[in-house]
Amino acid sequence: MAEDFPKVEGGGSLILAWQIRGKRVLVIGGGEVAAGRILNCLNADALVTVICPREGLNPEVAHRVALGQVTHIDRKFVPSDLDPSLSTTNTTTTTISSSSTTDQTQQQQQSPQTQEQQPPSLVLTAIDDPITSSEIYTLCHRLRIPANIADVPPECDFYFGSVHRDGPLQIMVSTNGKGPRLAATIRKSIAASLPPRAGEAIKKVGKLRQMLRKVEPGKEVAVIGKRMGWMIGVSDRYTWETFADMTEEDMANLVGFYQSGEPLPELEVLKGMREGEQAVWEFDGSFGFSVGC
Amino acid sequence: MAEDFPKVEGGGSLILAWQIRGKRVLVIGGGEVAAGRILNCLNADALVTVICPREGLNPEVAHRVALGQVTHIDRKFVPSDLDPSLSTTNTTTTTISSSSTTDQTQQQQQSPQTQEQQPPSLVLTAIDDPITSSEIYTLCHRLRIPANIADVPPECDFYFGSVHRDGPLQIMVSTNGKGPRLAATIRKSIAASLPPRAGEAIKKVGKLRQMLRKVEPGKEVAVIGKRMGWMIGVSDRYTWETFADMTEEDMANLVGFYQSGEPLPELEVLKGMREGEQAVWEFDGSFGFSVGC
Repeated sequence: MAEDFPKVEGGGSLILAWQIRGKRVLVIGGGEVAAGRILNCLNADALVTVICPREGLNPEVAHRVALGQVTHIDRKFVPSDLDPSLSTTNTTTTTISSSSTTDQTQQQQQSPQTQEQQPPSLVLTAIDDPITSSEIYTLCHRLRIPANIADVPPECDFYFGSVHRDGPLQIMVSTNGKGPRLAATIRKSIAASLPPRAGEAIKKVGKLRQMLRKVEPGKEVAVIGKRMGWMIGVSDRYTWETFADMTEEDMANLVGFYQSGEPLPELEVLKGMREGEQAVWEFDGSFGFSVGC
Repeated sequence: MAEDFPKVEGGGSLILAWQIRGKRVLVIGGGEVAAGRILNCLNADALVTVICPREGLNPEVAHRVALGQVTHIDRKFVPSDLDPSLSTTNTTTTTISSSSTTDQTQQQQQSPQTQEQQPPSLVLTAIDDPITSSEIYTLCHRLRIPANIADVPPECDFYFGSVHRDGPLQIMVSTNGKGPRLAATIRKSIAASLPPRAGEAIKKVGKLRQMLRKVEPGKEVAVIGKRMGWMIGVSDRYTWETFADMTEEDMANLVGFYQSGEPLPELEVLKGMREGEQAVWEFDGSFGFSVGC
């Protein structure tokens, strides 16, 4: 029996889909590497602040600053960017004063932390200054802020990978630092081999789950298990193309089979249950081609 | 120009390869969901502690406890599991006393925090108790410990996805909670479509980068750029199969082309540079079939 359990294969990363909607991410540096990371963060709805002298901004970052997609602080990093209690007086220096923490008590009294002054959720640095980078990492570590110091693997709490995105579908390829170029190659070949409209199909499945939870909202283990079992059956029963094409009416009809306990219908049966366009308009304006787009 | 920059597509996650080698991860609950998460963490070399009464352990978790792969605490969760300064006196209670923090100063004096008593890096819960789960999340949030409360998306700083693993290669599929079943289907189809021995090829590329950094160790931007450019050229030049088959001798010969500034050789030229088996044994015992395995 015991041999059936998956073997541990160490040496990997723990790959996680970080939820940073509305959370603050501090990006130190505004070059090409920063540009890529900023986009990753914006795609996850983070509140991004870029710290970099204006002349160091890469065109893409400057473009996002101009659009107001990111907050820009037009100078080099200072420790108080991470924690307002750290040397807020010296905002133009480029070096991190290691003695700055001695001012901590005094500074805290001068400027009590507000919600906005809380340390950021994540810190990413991409600057050509290994010493400052290391100091930033040390500071983040002390403040328990996860950080990524670009190009310095030992000073990274997390790595980035190559990500394919199609609506709710995200596929991340990591080579654990061994071959970033190969990761991008694999990501492109995966993107090319996915079922067409995979993202849309997944969106519809998500919608179906939502509708199912509405008619069967229980949080008891048995109910969760029943819902889950039915969703597995549905996921296995129809093709990607079918899901992508499903209208809200189809989904409502499908949920009816859950309620009645009947076995899942053939696709043609399900389609045959659709009302005429006239009826659809009378029933709900959200049907037809506009669904889920 | 501006239109050429990638558009922001919100609503996604920030997918990161978390580095938790040697870091403490607390798993609360020992059922089937916990078993999957524990394996994920062990594959990333985390120090995992499972908190769950023995009778609640799923066979896989019990197996890993028996093997000593995880530390087991045979009871329900108490707040001091997250922070020793919180009510260490009441270790058998199942509920979280919200007044426990009032003891904080007293407890800290009794038991000063050691390195081992630092809060864990991540907390994962998978228990059938929504109230305790929520309390754990609130506590984690206060202590700035990233947490995942299974099945409660709003109480997750991060989600898990479906991960394919082949040595250093990790591919994670997330549907952002819309269709976990479809994520697993996509992951399987990706795994089936990957080049054979992709993991081994990536391992070899990583080794080559390492050898390159030995002969050209500079940290200056220009040197990093030159190394990077050469690695891109190499990655694009040879097939996956070729990389997977490369011996350490081949890689050393290849690095010679970097040093001499000569263009990259045809595969057959590179193979032709191999010394006879006799010579190989005299030179280094790590060549041939054993390389990189």
